[in-house]
Amino acid sequence: MRLTSVDDVLAAERRLAGRIVRTPLLPCPQLGDEFALDVAVKAENLQHTGSFKVRGALNALLALAERQATPAGLTAFSAGNHAMAVAFAGRAFGLPTVVCMPPHAVPTKIEAVRRWGGEVVLTDDLLATCEEITAERGYHLLPPFDDPDVIAGQATLGRELLADGPPPGLVLVPVGGGGLISGVAAAVRRAVPTARIVGVEPATANVVGHALRTGGDAPATRPVSMADGLAAPFAGRLTLAHVRDLVDDLVEVTEADIRAAWWDLMAATRLLLEPAAAVTLAALRTGRVTAAPGTRTILVLSGGNISPTMLTTLP
Amino acid sequence: MRLTSVDDVLAAERRLAGRIVRTPLLPCPQLGDEFALDVAVKAENLQHTGSFKVRGALNALLALAERQATPAGLTAFSAGNHAMAVAFAGRAFGLPTVVCMPPHAVPTKIEAVRRWGGEVVLTDDLLATCEEITAERGYHLLPPFDDPDVIAGQATLGRELLADGPPPGLVLVPVGGGGLISGVAAAVRRAVPTARIVGVEPATANVVGHALRTGGDAPATRPVSMADGLAAPFAGRLTLAHVRDLVDDLVEVTEADIRAAWWDLMAATRLLLEPAAAVTLAALRTGRVTAAPGTRTILVLSGGNISPTMLTTLP
Repeated sequence: MRLTSVDDVLAAERRLAGRIVRTPLLPCPQLGDEFALDVAVKAENLQHTGSFKVRGALNALLALAERQATPAGLTAFSAGNHAMAVAFAGRAFGLPTVVCMPPHAVPTKIEAVRRWGGEVVLTDDLLATCEEITAERGYHLLPPFDDPDVIAGQATLGRELLADGPPPGLVLVPVGGGGLISGVAAAVRRAVPTARIVGVEPATANVVGHALRTGGDAPATRPVSMADGLAAPFAGRLTLAHVRDLVDDLVEVTEADIRAAWWDLMAATRLLLEPAAAVTLAALRTGRVTAAPGTRTILVLSGGNISPTMLTTLP
Repeated sequence: MRLTSVDDVLAAERRLAGRIVRTPLLPCPQLGDEFALDVAVKAENLQHTGSFKVRGALNALLALAERQATPAGLTAFSAGNHAMAVAFAGRAFGLPTVVCMPPHAVPTKIEAVRRWGGEVVLTDDLLATCEEITAERGYHLLPPFDDPDVIAGQATLGRELLADGPPPGLVLVPVGGGGLISGVAAAVRRAVPTARIVGVEPATANVVGHALRTGGDAPATRPVSMADGLAAPFAGRLTLAHVRDLVDDLVEVTEADIRAAWWDLMAATRLLLEPAAAVTLAALRTGRVTAAPGTRTILVLSGGNISPTMLTTLP
């Protein structure tokens, strides 16, 4: 299986120029003090649509256009962030969009899709419903993570964090279906061979780790986590190949770990973050990931789409 | 009274280089759509200590050092953000710091001062207590806003927002004692004479507006607002002179306006913000400030220090 090349990433970077936010890499001395590390955060919650997903979705759509294969419309299935990204991309290109989302999706995410003109279908059977709608309407299903153009789009985030600071010794990335870490690893691994790239999954939504251990199976029980953005129903084949080859380690954190880290990460960074982003801090707090004192450490903060009711449960 | 000159601002910029965060100017298409304006936000909540206050405090301390007048220690009085900035500056220079804060100060702000080694004195009589401690210990009282070096420090924020985007047509700035808007106006007015610079005060904490109307008096009742960072007890003489000469308009918003705008501003920007920052959006929402369609509009988001309990009151 061909992994994402430097040329793929450069092509994505060229396509996305001027269309995405170059999100800041922000120093976080408070977390640096806590762990005796040199900590910075890649604030991807500040991306258009509030998550990294718009990088992959736009790159995939632009790549289709280059191949003269612009579709009549777009479909997607997603807990929310990919849905928002596809609706955003659809609006940018004047294409109708239908996204399948779970009935328990974060209300803010559903509203955002509708604000960008996307049609929302709430269903528990995301993949089958989405495939059916795609066939009926003759639209293009834009995959959430298991796609070379989507991964190359996410890789542009890795390029930016390399350009905006000293070479990292440790990069911590939230893992759902594996698209983000595949892209980041493709960009970082080749430029900084010594960097440790570690993925973090919720213990209750660990499809990538489960597939690595079992040789590719999806878990028997449906993944559920307060980090809703990471509860992918299955890992990708292409993302698994990237994780196997390019990622150093994959660790898990509990729901209690995520809950405890969430507010503290927002307070330390002054960013509005979704719980998915907090798995990175949870991995450091619980000692699942350690590094030598002073290590340049980057936490990839994947998104910031939450509903206010989620905040009322804070300590 | 001599207002802040371009040279003062350039000197501050030189002193602060490498010591502060160059906070991002972020596009906000969601708010742009709402008002048919070209909206960007200056995310000063991402500054060290979580507010713009560190610019003025550090510049004042560095200016003292240039005059061979580095004090034995620092004192300050503040609802919180200036206290944090002075404690941060004190730690950076190895100086002991005592800050007087009101008993009802946001707990997160008190904890942050202590984390940076500052001594906190809780008192309702901020100014008198602070002057007493200053005299007893022979420390230097670092003023919160009514000081040329503090204003020049805040002005560096204005320089950055000019450098990082097209010339603004409208700049909205939260107003407490007037230090931030004095600095921003000093930087922006001279570079972009056509820009409208508008200050926004809580109606219940409007010391600058009150002083302008009465010729300098402090209000009879103590200012109180959910925007705790704006509840300055009195306006400055120097800041009043800046506002009179350099600011186009000063408007007021109610507590209900601020509460309604607060979550929406966080959701639209994905930034953790204190209510003070939300007076800018409240002024647009209530029509207190208007601009021609497409006007390049910058909201100065002054800080992001909140306690989690404040979030439990959200809608």
